[in-house]
Amino acid sequence: MSIEFKDVEAAAGRIADGIARTPCVHSIPLSDLTGMQIYCKLEYLQRTGSFKERGARNALLQLSPEQKSRGVIAASAGNHALGLSYHGQLLRIPVTVVMPKFAPLTKVVNCRKFGATVILDGGNIGEAKTKADEIGSKRGLAYINGFDDLAIIAGQGTIGLEIASQAPDLDAVIVPIGGAGLVAGVALAVKKMRPNAQIIGVEPDRAASFMAAMVAGKPVDFDMKPTIADGLAVPKVGRNGFEIASKLVDRVLLLREHDIAVSVLRLLEMEKALVEGGGAITLAACLAGTVPELKDKKVVLLLTGGNIDISTLGRILERGLTYDGRLCRLNVTISDRPGGLARFASVVAEEGGSIIEINHDRAFASDDITTVVVHCVIETRDAEHIASLRKKLASEGFTETE
Amino acid sequence: MSIEFKDVEAAAGRIADGIARTPCVHSIPLSDLTGMQIYCKLEYLQRTGSFKERGARNALLQLSPEQKSRGVIAASAGNHALGLSYHGQLLRIPVTVVMPKFAPLTKVVNCRKFGATVILDGGNIGEAKTKADEIGSKRGLAYINGFDDLAIIAGQGTIGLEIASQAPDLDAVIVPIGGAGLVAGVALAVKKMRPNAQIIGVEPDRAASFMAAMVAGKPVDFDMKPTIADGLAVPKVGRNGFEIASKLVDRVLLLREHDIAVSVLRLLEMEKALVEGGGAITLAACLAGTVPELKDKKVVLLLTGGNIDISTLGRILERGLTYDGRLCRLNVTISDRPGGLARFASVVAEEGGSIIEINHDRAFASDDITTVVVHCVIETRDAEHIASLRKKLASEGFTETE
Repeated sequence: MSIEFKDVEAAAGRIADGIARTPCVHSIPLSDLTGMQIYCKLEYLQRTGSFKERGARNALLQLSPEQKSRGVIAASAGNHALGLSYHGQLLRIPVTVVMPKFAPLTKVVNCRKFGATVILDGGNIGEAKTKADEIGSKRGLAYINGFDDLAIIAGQGTIGLEIASQAPDLDAVIVPIGGAGLVAGVALAVKKMRPNAQIIGVEPDRAASFMAAMVAGKPVDFDMKPTIADGLAVPKVGRNGFEIASKLVDRVLLLREHDIAVSVLRLLEMEKALVEGGGAITLAACLAGTVPELKDKKVVLLLTGGNIDISTLGRILERGLTYDGRLCRLNVTISDRPGGLARFASVVAEEGGSIIEINHDRAFASDDITTVVVHCVIETRDAEHIASLRKKLASEGFTETE
Repeated sequence: MSIEFKDVEAAAGRIADGIARTPCVHSIPLSDLTGMQIYCKLEYLQRTGSFKERGARNALLQLSPEQKSRGVIAASAGNHALGLSYHGQLLRIPVTVVMPKFAPLTKVVNCRKFGATVILDGGNIGEAKTKADEIGSKRGLAYINGFDDLAIIAGQGTIGLEIASQAPDLDAVIVPIGGAGLVAGVALAVKKMRPNAQIIGVEPDRAASFMAAMVAGKPVDFDMKPTIADGLAVPKVGRNGFEIASKLVDRVLLLREHDIAVSVLRLLEMEKALVEGGGAITLAACLAGTVPELKDKKVVLLLTGGNIDISTLGRILERGLTYDGRLCRLNVTISDRPGGLARFASVVAEEGGSIIEINHDRAFASDDITTVVVHCVIETRDAEHIASLRKKLASEGFTETE
């Protein structure tokens, strides 16, 4: 069993009154930055902050009356859980979500706000899934897989329909790949409506499960590492999604963490958009030089969601700023006598650096007790600025340690 | 001399090909939060991140050929400088901006990128203005005031035209007030097209220069204090803007810093939008309970700009989280013997708090050298959670100090 274009069209009609038709805006800043004509599909503007609502609503609406009254269950630590909870509430279908114990507090709180029963169980999403299966079969709840249920794939495909009409002469769409449901649905829609448009799938190199499936010819387990694009961290892509997407996707690209971090920063600073790593990765493809053939072309980035914890955001931005050379950490030996710090701080200030954090490390410093190592974080302009600051410090007799 | 509705219409035609017609999107999350039907006008999507481009382009296009070739000058540390620089470059009109010496590095860098001559002079914007006047008259450059030039007011008014067509049955528009140019232009447009719509002006209570002018019956100097809404920090509103706006604005509201900080946080988390304090203040009006009569009404928030330094953003978000009870600082005396910290950390963990920063303070602690004060920052759920954590710590024998 699979789905076709007409299923995506049917999904669009079915979910229309409960889903936002999000804008697809031309971004002048990002176009200037990349040399492409960049259009951003703002899926983070959905009520729960991600595109996952589309599939969730489509799946819920196709349940039998009996299933609707019994309810549904899913294991998810993230956007699928939110989408399902919210539309379950709107449609008066009971929703149970099983989340791993480490799930972010805000997502637990929000699912409960939307009326879902939240069960915290298991140390990872796999264990939560086992628990969800167990509860589901015991209580007769329909399990809704967040990326491989055919109704989910058709629902996500509705983004493709919108893009095709909002940016009619598009040359390419860049789509994030987690479990491959989104890319499958979008490819079905776009390839039918705009056969000449390229579909470029992107995933983190630390969670390259679609690439692994392409190599193996079928979904296989990928040995994942944690990634900033946590929404895409699915160890094995879905069978249905893979079958559809593998035939339609033109290219698959793997992106590195620092490119994703920089993209989160660029989207925030230039597009004023909070986009999670799993969405910002689409911009990363443009910035990392992996799609030079798209220069001057009309490229749509699917900005799939914006659910980042504020504390996580802080850490990602720090990485982005460091990579930009706008933040640097220096460990410098200074005199531990009166005026020692003042002299160091003056040199940094004269060079245009701004010290935003400084700690003295006496216990583990050198044998010379007239000196002390300071660990400091300095705001700078760029890598060149850091180099000139270092040179100046060296010329003034300050030595750096590891 | 003043301007009328037809001048705003003329401006719209004049600037159309160089300005983004930004979306005006219905926000389900913010509607749920406020109990109003909230529409957000996304002016931060302009190329330089703010609405200021509209007026700047309109003013530049109306210069005489001779003035165009000589160029223009303005004093601004912010969005007006960016808008003028960018459109000066597009229209090949030389732009000089005088910024105070403390101006944020990114804004200096960006104005230079757009080809402007940037002069850093003066310790505040008033001193920069004096310098700009001096240079302008010496070199024959036209001075373009960022809020009181009539062409600027007409240009900003084009936002009102767009809103009236994008949200035709609107009940109210909430407009930030700095120098009163934006509110004057928007009011001219909206009151003509939708006479029943209310215009609500908002400003920080620490920079309440419009309110001061309303009280005095004319623009007067307001004794300002620094505000998160730094773009609105104009000590004396413009004469033209005040004359137009004072007749058309239905209400003026003053908002406090913490309400503005919380609004920046809410817009980021719920709308996924980076909005500077001067724009977020429009949401603050809804959240602070100052407009109860707008319940269930269709309310447009002008999200005027998104230019916040990443480091400033961090500080604003911390305040917002603290106000929400999602971040707390505790200074607690613990045992300075092996296991002392472990015991404290366990109690916090058991209560569901997450310690994100901890520092030992030995030198300035009590006389008892077997104990030490730790200063820690803890992530919590809300104010209630903090109270129960404190209670638990007290019951376990930990004492808090100032």
